[in-house]
Amino acid sequence: MRSHLQELRDGATVSGWPQRFGQVRLATEAIAAPLSPEDCQIQSMPDASPIKWHLAHTSWFFETFILAPNVPDYRPFRPEFKVLYNSYYNAVGDKHPRPERGLISRPSLSEIYAYRQYIDAAMGETVLSHPASMTPKIHALIELGINHEQQHQELMLTDIKHLFSCNPLAPVYQPRWPLVAVAKVAPRFIELAGGLVEIGHSDTQRFAFDNEMPRHKVYLEPFALANLPVTHGDFEAFIDDGGYERPELWLSLGWDEVVRSGWDSPMYWRRVDGGWHTFTLHGLVPIDRDTPICHISYFEADAYARWAGARLPTESEWEHAAGIVGRHVDDNHLESGLLHPVAPREGTTPARHDLHKMMDDVWEWTSSSYAPYPGFRPAPGAIGEYNGKFMCNQNVLRGGSCVTPESHVRSTYRNFFPPSARWQFSGVRLARDC
Amino acid sequence: MRSHLQELRDGATVSGWPQRFGQVRLATEAIAAPLSPEDCQIQSMPDASPIKWHLAHTSWFFETFILAPNVPDYRPFRPEFKVLYNSYYNAVGDKHPRPERGLISRPSLSEIYAYRQYIDAAMGETVLSHPASMTPKIHALIELGINHEQQHQELMLTDIKHLFSCNPLAPVYQPRWPLVAVAKVAPRFIELAGGLVEIGHSDTQRFAFDNEMPRHKVYLEPFALANLPVTHGDFEAFIDDGGYERPELWLSLGWDEVVRSGWDSPMYWRRVDGGWHTFTLHGLVPIDRDTPICHISYFEADAYARWAGARLPTESEWEHAAGIVGRHVDDNHLESGLLHPVAPREGTTPARHDLHKMMDDVWEWTSSSYAPYPGFRPAPGAIGEYNGKFMCNQNVLRGGSCVTPESHVRSTYRNFFPPSARWQFSGVRLARDC
Amino acid sequence: MRSHLQELRDGATVSGWPQRFGQVRLATEAIAAPLSPEDCQIQSMPDASPIKWHLAHTSWFFETFILAPNVPDYRPFRPEFKVLYNSYYNAVGDKHPRPERGLISRPSLSEIYAYRQYIDAAMGETVLSHPASMTPKIHALIELGINHEQQHQELMLTDIKHLFSCNPLAPVYQPRWPLVAVAKVAPRFIELAGGLVEIGHSDTQRFAFDNEMPRHKVYLEPFALANLPVTHGDFEAFIDDGGYERPELWLSLGWDEVVRSGWDSPMYWRRVDGGWHTFTLHGLVPIDRDTPICHISYFEADAYARWAGARLPTESEWEHAAGIVGRHVDDNHLESGLLHPVAPREGTTPARHDLHKMMDDVWEWTSSSYAPYPGFRPAPGAIGEYNGKFMCNQNVLRGGSCVTPESHVRSTYRNFFPPSARWQFSGVRLARDC
Amino acid sequence: MRSHLQELRDGATVSGWPQRFGQVRLATEAIAAPLSPEDCQIQSMPDASPIKWHLAHTSWFFETFILAPNVPDYRPFRPEFKVLYNSYYNAVGDKHPRPERGLISRPSLSEIYAYRQYIDAAMGETVLSHPASMTPKIHALIELGINHEQQHQELMLTDIKHLFSCNPLAPVYQPRWPLVAVAKVAPRFIELAGGLVEIGHSDTQRFAFDNEMPRHKVYLEPFALANLPVTHGDFEAFIDDGGYERPELWLSLGWDEVVRSGWDSPMYWRRVDGGWHTFTLHGLVPIDRDTPICHISYFEADAYARWAGARLPTESEWEHAAGIVGRHVDDNHLESGLLHPVAPREGTTPARHDLHKMMDDVWEWTSSSYAPYPGFRPAPGAIGEYNGKFMCNQNVLRGGSCVTPESHVRSTYRNFFPPSARWQFSGVRLARDC
Repeated sequence: MRSHLQELRDGATVSGWPQRFGQVRLATEAIAAPLSPEDCQIQSMPDASPIKWHLAHTSWFFETFILAPNVPDYRPFRPEFKVLYNSYYNAVGDKHPRPERGLISRPSLSEIYAYRQYIDAAMGETVLSHPASMTPKIHALIELGINHEQQHQELMLTDIKHLFSCNPLAPVYQPRWPLVAVAKVAPRFIELAGGLVEIGHSDTQRFAFDNEMPRHKVYLEPFALANLPVTHGDFEAFIDDGGYERPELWLSLGWDEVVRSGWDSPMYWRRVDGGWHTFTLHGLVPIDRDTPICHISYFEADAYARWAGARLPTESEWEHAAGIVGRHVDDNHLESGLLHPVAPREGTTPARHDLHKMMDDVWEWTSSSYAPYPGFRPAPGAIGEYNGKFMCNQNVLRGGSCVTPESHVRSTYRNFFPPSARWQFSGVRLARDC
Repeated sequence: MRSHLQELRDGATVSGWPQRFGQVRLATEAIAAPLSPEDCQIQSMPDASPIKWHLAHTSWFFETFILAPNVPDYRPFRPEFKVLYNSYYNAVGDKHPRPERGLISRPSLSEIYAYRQYIDAAMGETVLSHPASMTPKIHALIELGINHEQQHQELMLTDIKHLFSCNPLAPVYQPRWPLVAVAKVAPRFIELAGGLVEIGHSDTQRFAFDNEMPRHKVYLEPFALANLPVTHGDFEAFIDDGGYERPELWLSLGWDEVVRSGWDSPMYWRRVDGGWHTFTLHGLVPIDRDTPICHISYFEADAYARWAGARLPTESEWEHAAGIVGRHVDDNHLESGLLHPVAPREGTTPARHDLHKMMDDVWEWTSSSYAPYPGFRPAPGAIGEYNGKFMCNQNVLRGGSCVTPESHVRSTYRNFFPPSARWQFSGVRLARDC
Repeated sequence: MRSHLQELRDGATVSGWPQRFGQVRLATEAIAAPLSPEDCQIQSMPDASPIKWHLAHTSWFFETFILAPNVPDYRPFRPEFKVLYNSYYNAVGDKHPRPERGLISRPSLSEIYAYRQYIDAAMGETVLSHPASMTPKIHALIELGINHEQQHQELMLTDIKHLFSCNPLAPVYQPRWPLVAVAKVAPRFIELAGGLVEIGHSDTQRFAFDNEMPRHKVYLEPFALANLPVTHGDFEAFIDDGGYERPELWLSLGWDEVVRSGWDSPMYWRRVDGGWHTFTLHGLVPIDRDTPICHISYFEADAYARWAGARLPTESEWEHAAGIVGRHVDDNHLESGLLHPVAPREGTTPARHDLHKMMDDVWEWTSSSYAPYPGFRPAPGAIGEYNGKFMCNQNVLRGGSCVTPESHVRSTYRNFFPPSARWQFSGVRLARDC
Repeated sequence: MRSHLQELRDGATVSGWPQRFGQVRLATEAIAAPLSPEDCQIQSMPDASPIKWHLAHTSWFFETFILAPNVPDYRPFRPEFKVLYNSYYNAVGDKHPRPERGLISRPSLSEIYAYRQYIDAAMGETVLSHPASMTPKIHALIELGINHEQQHQELMLTDIKHLFSCNPLAPVYQPRWPLVAVAKVAPRFIELAGGLVEIGHSDTQRFAFDNEMPRHKVYLEPFALANLPVTHGDFEAFIDDGGYERPELWLSLGWDEVVRSGWDSPMYWRRVDGGWHTFTLHGLVPIDRDTPICHISYFEADAYARWAGARLPTESEWEHAAGIVGRHVDDNHLESGLLHPVAPREGTTPARHDLHKMMDDVWEWTSSSYAPYPGFRPAPGAIGEYNGKFMCNQNVLRGGSCVTPESHVRSTYRNFFPPSARWQFSGVRLARDC
């Protein structure tokens, strides 16, 4: 039987954005398909959101920023949704408090699906079917809405994973686990020359978020980057060497967190009969030592690097290296249905591919704080709140993960989370001075 | 159309306990009937529980205390439920943490209904249908289980009310509001002589909780008790007179709570267009000044009494008075379907009924801390945890409320909650020294 | 060398209240004498107060309630002190926040001593030296002020003990430890008949707080009371039997506290080389198994009693028994200079003294919540806030302790603290039903 | 009368480091001189430390890192101080918990002064007087100790200011307020060309912290920097324009902090009779609109810049500009005795000095997160904990303040605090893209 997610992949050849809109909307619902109304109701922690909320909020985005301002006499599905499904846009008006998203049992899940259909129909009838009326600004907002929804696809999977991990009955999101033949690749460092280089997005044909622009010069000292991300096996060695018990390996805030939260292993790891298991979207399984480590915080990534006598790359180093490497074809993204990192595939050729898995499997923490690029200008109005106002106390992650939609990945992409966050598929690749 | 709750009343003539078991089990499901899987999933605050949990836990009670120990080769529905639906019985073993009851999306609501049917069938086949094998101890446990489930029926309604009050869309549990003709009764104080009296349960034929026993002597000074509970209108006068702004009216801990929580009115009251409304199970409605006040804490009851130049009754005074009055026939309990307090009904005769509404509409806070009666002995084993271990920092409420099952009410009943609790249908009746 | 506290005892023969005023004021300063300005500055937890604050607040009491309202043209020492040293009297106006008492470095300790002298002089010149002008009301307020200051004397010693216990250098308040010859008394239960008895204060000649009145009837079932308080040795046996690890022994709130606070022994107990030591005002010493246990919470007292197959007495039972026993002559109070509980003294005669140590060594937790007596009326005005507003979520302790001034002890005295409080010299005496 | 701080300035001509050691040690004590034992005891918030602790910890630094490892048979003043006055060096062993520094009344202030003398004597006899035995490593540690103590001098003044601000009696640290003639300088932006520049410390003759190294290349776009820091008057205009009420001006975390903490003005500002005053080390005074704003958080600096249509400089931009400007002669540092920012002095010549007050008055927030320079290597051992482990969730401040010792200021200096910190003399200078 084929995965409901794999099926989406087959449609990937269609290229027009009306098709992409429809495809992304369906992909979101495909992710929610295995879930019950109860599953979709719960907010398992303040950082997470109910699946039902994700389904509604991504529709709200199109309604609020495209339909309501541009469609004459547009009638909202329910006017109360303007407040109820506003995430954080102060310029849009009031918003329902974030930690209380799980308290809204009504509208029901089925009503939210009706909301989605209403929005899809409205987009189809009034916007998509009159291309002549499309201004570049509307076009850009639709692109933004599509990319926004892709971000929420990833969050839906990390949020449902967290929810299921809270249940002592350990429910399984997807029982099937696709088989993949993997290769043994020896770890080593690849040296890069650095110098005055450019990073940032400049391709006016492809979408990028405002925070990836403008393209600009940075000066890099020569550096080396590991050809592979750190693996589950590497991290077990760190634990066995007392990694979680030695404050000298940790940032001060990181050690505070270790003590306060009682961390002794990555998120979702559990001791079972003396061996480490990890909770996945396929259930609880023994760790596979060859797969990239995931669900570690910036603090753990940094402590591991210190223990290993290395350091984290900056985001400039990472992007510069990724630009040289180019893109792999068999990356492990959402559409693979693996929903978990995996070792390099068999048949991976070394040429040009010295740097494995830059764009998939796990997001890679960088040492760079999330900050505006020189000359950064947020968009005017509410949409300007999308990225800029979060540029404080977060670290940039680069690449993409096994639950990122494939078309959402690019080398200039800047993901960001607070240094203590662990519920994303976050891992680490080491760097070194030359 | 008749209320699903009213229908239960018609069956009230059946008297054997197998019938009562079935009736109580059905009544629980009737309360949940208007609710969706989403409604039943949510724990809206740590003090509340999901409806799904109530449905499961009341079944767990029969499984754990009757079926598992007494039925040879009993196979539990699912062994994991022993931990998952244990509320607070340490002697039963581990228990799922109370504040995390809302995180369990699976088992689903329908699986919990299957669990209920499994338990009902097991009770029917193995216990109820072999009366010869019934020891007095098992009989007593079944009675306890029935009464336990009735307690949860009331909690289900107060918990769902709280949940719906958190939703800005203000969902309605039951749209219909039964009409009742009410009488105007003038408020006054009734004097009672006191002396050396007896309180507590002694009727070996009727069920009572262990905390109502043993019957014992107490000495009462002469006192007076109000013929009516304090009303919504009375409480509005208290607010208008600055009741929530004058620390001298409050217990020290009560004033702390007023400041910390920003209380300026009873729970569920909201200002709408300059007038007070209150959120009910029928939606948001203007307050009715003649109905008993509800959803006030002990602190508010006590502050109101001080403002009114009166005091709260002790539980001994209350029970002594209630014993003299006897029972009303037209009380407003769960089965009335009103789900809200109401003024005295038209046709209420004054004789013998000078003390109105002692047993219905709202639980009445007393000044008595919840403490063991002289000679109190909790039952041995896990069942002994039912009442005794909560005898600290709680106050006793007496009577019964508009969401208490009628057969659950009696004059010796001791309800108890912490002094800051407001989400029950809790009100107050004034007392005075003579 | 004699204790500075013992010296105060010699003056105890003077009987007029001007003398008593002076004596009490000096006793307060004698307690502070061994302390440095630094010692007197610190508030070691929100429940405690700086010694400097105690010194000032007890003076504020006389200034606010006696001097300011009654002395024509009274000039306050510093007008800002009205707010700064108000403890909790809302009717007096604003007050400095309780948790911030330790932030006031200025006025200095020496300025507070000057304040004390100013108040003493003002009391001497204007009030004490014109007895003719003394109304009964002023007289009563002076009595209240004296008793109020005695309460703070005890608090000063418990607060400084807590402060010193926080210091890893374990400072010593009083190095000398008076030697006392002790007797071996076998523990047993004394039976009392109960019946309709009277408790509460009625002696119009002697001072009592408003909460001890009015004297009133209560009905007691026959009961038995232990002849001795529970000892350090008894409590060690409870610990050795897993007392802190068995939830079935504890009230629900008590067990929560054990888990949250990690309690595994009474306050101030520490394991040293495998044996239990306790921190005292004389430093860290091995526990003496024959002395009454102290620094236990109500929760621990209650759990111990359950473990021992007994219960706590009610305050009515305790007072009834204490009234029969009468007063001992060699009790261990503040003036003994022991500052720690002690076993019964050698030469203690059994006759009439079957109940040992009712009034000294440690306050004894009762099962009674702190509540108003029937007919209780707080004094009008700010003084009415002294006791009544604290009648919620506290338990009554009876007797007196090794740091209570001797003249402050009486059988009707009602001390009260929340059930989790441990920093007072609180212990327990067991009771039983007959 | 001359300031005790000014006197220190006169000795500034002595140049050898033995002299500087003595001078710095005396300067620390001069700062504490106006303070009582009570003043020196208190920790007014977890971020602050008692003055007594500062006096001890700066001595502990020399004892732990120089005397104990290098002096044969060194006898510590008191062995317990090794733990008691360890701030955060895990490699040194245990440490007293930071939030409990205010609970240590003993040792007394005078004993801490004795400790200082003991350390000074030991340094003099064993280290300073045997220059031949001085290794470069010891020499470097002494330099570090001197600079460390200068950092604590600044902290002592900011901590005592915070403490006094908590006292409703508003104590004054230094009554005298030196008069300074000021000039009116028109605000404008100065353009700088940027390009590939170098920042960081490289002078092997002068001391710098490890975090200022290595010197390295960065690429700067052309930018403009304000010739003056933002003033009290500027900030009042921001407030008057609703600055604290408009979420669109704030970073998301900043707005959270505004709401949570109720910020409506910079720290220490208070409304008095309708006008803004600010609490200073000279007491409460009306704000002077021409002086640089201080005691603002990064969040407020950033919001102000957004409101003003500008941005914060990066630390690279700032240092590059400061290097061009060079140093002013009449800067307002600790030794001026002003202890508060001040407008540019009369007689300030414009040439070369277009950028006023870069190095004094207030620390200037930059948009740069505190991060390691490329190639940064912390020192081995405990000293390596000095800087590196704090490189997370902090922003860099540049320049120096009115309470920074003059010899401690340099253009490569990197100060850092969390973005919500306000109790330092922190202000802001605007930047712009060209």
